[in-house]
Amino acid sequence: MNKIITISREFGSGGRELGRRLSEELGFAYYDQEIITEIAKKTQLAEGYVQNIMESKPIFSYPIHIGVSFQAANVVMNQQWQAIFREQCSLLKELAEKSNCVIVGRCGDYILADYHPYRIFVYSDLDHKMIRCRMKGKPGEKMTDKELKRSIANIDKGRREYYNFMTMQTFGEKSNYDLCINTANISIKGIVPYLARMLKGSVLVDEPDFTSEPAK
Amino acid sequence: MNKIITISREFGSGGRELGRRLSEELGFAYYDQEIITEIAKKTQLAEGYVQNIMESKPIFSYPIHIGVSFQAANVVMNQQWQAIFREQCSLLKELAEKSNCVIVGRCGDYILADYHPYRIFVYSDLDHKMIRCRMKGKPGEKMTDKELKRSIANIDKGRREYYNFMTMQTFGEKSNYDLCINTANISIKGIVPYLARMLKGSVLVDEPDFTSEPAK
Repeated sequence: MNKIITISREFGSGGRELGRRLSEELGFAYYDQEIITEIAKKTQLAEGYVQNIMESKPIFSYPIHIGVSFQAANVVMNQQWQAIFREQCSLLKELAEKSNCVIVGRCGDYILADYHPYRIFVYSDLDHKMIRCRMKGKPGEKMTDKELKRSIANIDKGRREYYNFMTMQTFGEKSNYDLCINTANISIKGIVPYLARMLKGSVLVDEPDFTSEPAK
Repeated sequence: MNKIITISREFGSGGRELGRRLSEELGFAYYDQEIITEIAKKTQLAEGYVQNIMESKPIFSYPIHIGVSFQAANVVMNQQWQAIFREQCSLLKELAEKSNCVIVGRCGDYILADYHPYRIFVYSDLDHKMIRCRMKGKPGEKMTDKELKRSIANIDKGRREYYNFMTMQTFGEKSNYDLCINTANISIKGIVPYLARMLKGSVLVDEPDFTSEPAK
């Protein structure tokens, strides 16, 4: 079975950078935005639209006192959301079958549970997330601190709601992950080579040496 | 300033073993049960009593309709608890001043905040905690699964309540830690040498290379 690493992350925590660097160190395939592009192709929807759907909680409620046209639009949206979800599951499994890989976001830890991925969660405190957003220049550019804080909170809320709704688990709850890394006071560039060696040497091995654990 | 690593852990997760092995790999001093022994000496209380106090929530409430003797006993207990807490703070700071060290439990992450410790939280799922307890033989011996589950839950409850009360933080909440390690599917013996190298090479350095972080 291929070795799969999934990265879940808070916005601005550097999870994407950590995932990309880790894939380079390990020589694994790396999938992130490519997943959106591929789903957009298969569902014939715009990439931006697919991304929006995948970062917000889907609407499944049907208001009682509404006109037929609004209800019809709602049905179409739900059909699209279900189509995206189906494609997301099938694509992620296809990628997991193909080769060793690092998958960022897209509920990979949950969808690929049968592939026993090593599940990493990357997080940080708000101050360091803001610094990282400013460094990246997008979407922090031209925003006041207050606007940037609101923007980070909104994106995280969307990711959390989509994840919680799809997986019936809690986004960021550490019991759903194997390793949670706080990037507030570390250099991602500095830590990744060591992290890669740690995973390669002790976690991504076929048979971890449990038997030698001393009874202390 | 000395390098300090604090290990907080769920009962049965192997946090103590991880801490001990980490201290050996790094050549750091290791403090665990020694802290209880030292506090017992300084407060002239029995070690078992000190340990019990440090693994349960202190009682600060004074019931209105009680006899004087019970109230007096309560006052004595509270005085003892405060004395233990004072000794705990002063001893941990003394150890942190002395040399590089790994400190297991005892709210080290909170008490030593000014020393900027690298704060590790070790956790696991209940099934693996039970296996580990059975391997250790204590306190799992002669217990049924149901009894063992209850015992693990009670010890964790005591630690959580003591920590939350003393620190006004939430035990196990990942934002209070730098790294959270799930030991359910790993060999602690296998991972620690790599973990030690990772900490030595990228985290316990005097000046992490933040400047070289690319703006991607």
